[in-house]
Amino acid sequence: MDPKPAEGTAKKRRRGRPPGAGEQTRARLIRAGMELLTERGFGSTGLDELLREVGVPKGSFYYYFQSKDAFGAAVIDGYARYFADKLERHFGAAGETWLGRLQAFVDDAKRGMRRHGFRRGCLVGNLGQEFGSHHDAFRAQLAGVFDDWSRRVADLLEKARAAGEFTASEDCLALADFFWTGWEGAVLRAKLVRSAEPLDRFTTLFFDRVLRRA
Amino acid sequence: MDPKPAEGTAKKRRRGRPPGAGEQTRARLIRAGMELLTERGFGSTGLDELLREVGVPKGSFYYYFQSKDAFGAAVIDGYARYFADKLERHFGAAGETWLGRLQAFVDDAKRGMRRHGFRRGCLVGNLGQEFGSHHDAFRAQLAGVFDDWSRRVADLLEKARAAGEFTASEDCLALADFFWTGWEGAVLRAKLVRSAEPLDRFTTLFFDRVLRRA
Repeated sequence: MDPKPAEGTAKKRRRGRPPGAGEQTRARLIRAGMELLTERGFGSTGLDELLREVGVPKGSFYYYFQSKDAFGAAVIDGYARYFADKLERHFGAAGETWLGRLQAFVDDAKRGMRRHGFRRGCLVGNLGQEFGSHHDAFRAQLAGVFDDWSRRVADLLEKARAAGEFTASEDCLALADFFWTGWEGAVLRAKLVRSAEPLDRFTTLFFDRVLRRA
Repeated sequence: MDPKPAEGTAKKRRRGRPPGAGEQTRARLIRAGMELLTERGFGSTGLDELLREVGVPKGSFYYYFQSKDAFGAAVIDGYARYFADKLERHFGAAGETWLGRLQAFVDDAKRGMRRHGFRRGCLVGNLGQEFGSHHDAFRAQLAGVFDDWSRRVADLLEKARAAGEFTASEDCLALADFFWTGWEGAVLRAKLVRSAEPLDRFTTLFFDRVLRRA
């Protein structure tokens, strides 16, 4: 699907809501978009397929979203919130070491990829590859999501280092950036080889060699 | 552009070559595809745009390629060969240490990204994100390209270790896989932040912490 609205659709927009329409349908469209865009890019995802899945008639899309771009932005935002919640849950788990919490996130993500046959990766990685070069609004939004993830991991690493859990002396934000770039690459390769091996390989070397886990 | 041929195009195929058509035009289409797909995914690349760029009339595409899939496969193959040549050139550079040769590849890639305003990344990364989940032929082809790159870096690392250039004791293929996954993630992030910093951050930690450069 092209991120720009198709010609002739602008005039159909927001003439009124179809019967039964509401925030719930909008939320279902965003959720379906998150699932589809975690598997594929925007370009390979047909809007028709998405609307069919949610059971929304083709003509109604623009009652819920001003444009395909607005829809894309809402999906990225939804994914960012979902992912921030996931990180918060893992990183806030009492009774675990700090690095144990990061490992728990990794294990959970691995289970998630395995459950979906290594077809689903990372929405931010997918759209970053697709739009990083030519869609400035998406690019800035996606870069902001990565920055948020890096800050969260950097915070955790500060605490882990203070607790003596690893010995690397580098700036924790640099270590966190390294973690996320390596993770994104490993998720991509896990999709290509349909196996968790790239994820294991990356995290083992990250913990043992880069952080020098105590 | 959708990787499946549009309906009604099959019957137009290979009725004969248009005047002046030949291997040269086919090669130009592949080269233009490499450029476009290094910036974006298949889905965001209009076939029309590509044909316009090469100056090939719209109806002639199927004289050169049996299908859009065949075109995609030829573009991946072209990129794989271009990249293998680049690695061979750097890794075979006499008068350099082995790790110096890997560093020279990194520096060259950085210059290339900077020259294109950090808009162009890696075709294999782009298409891997887009098709890893739902296009088995592309997926296998792209996984094979990554395997080839890993073997080349693993060979270089064997020689570097034998020459005492680093002290990490891990299997060189595991180290090479780690290099490429981290590199792909760093290229993605460099596109998002339009800066070489993610590339520098990744390679510094890779050389110093993962390999423990002597």
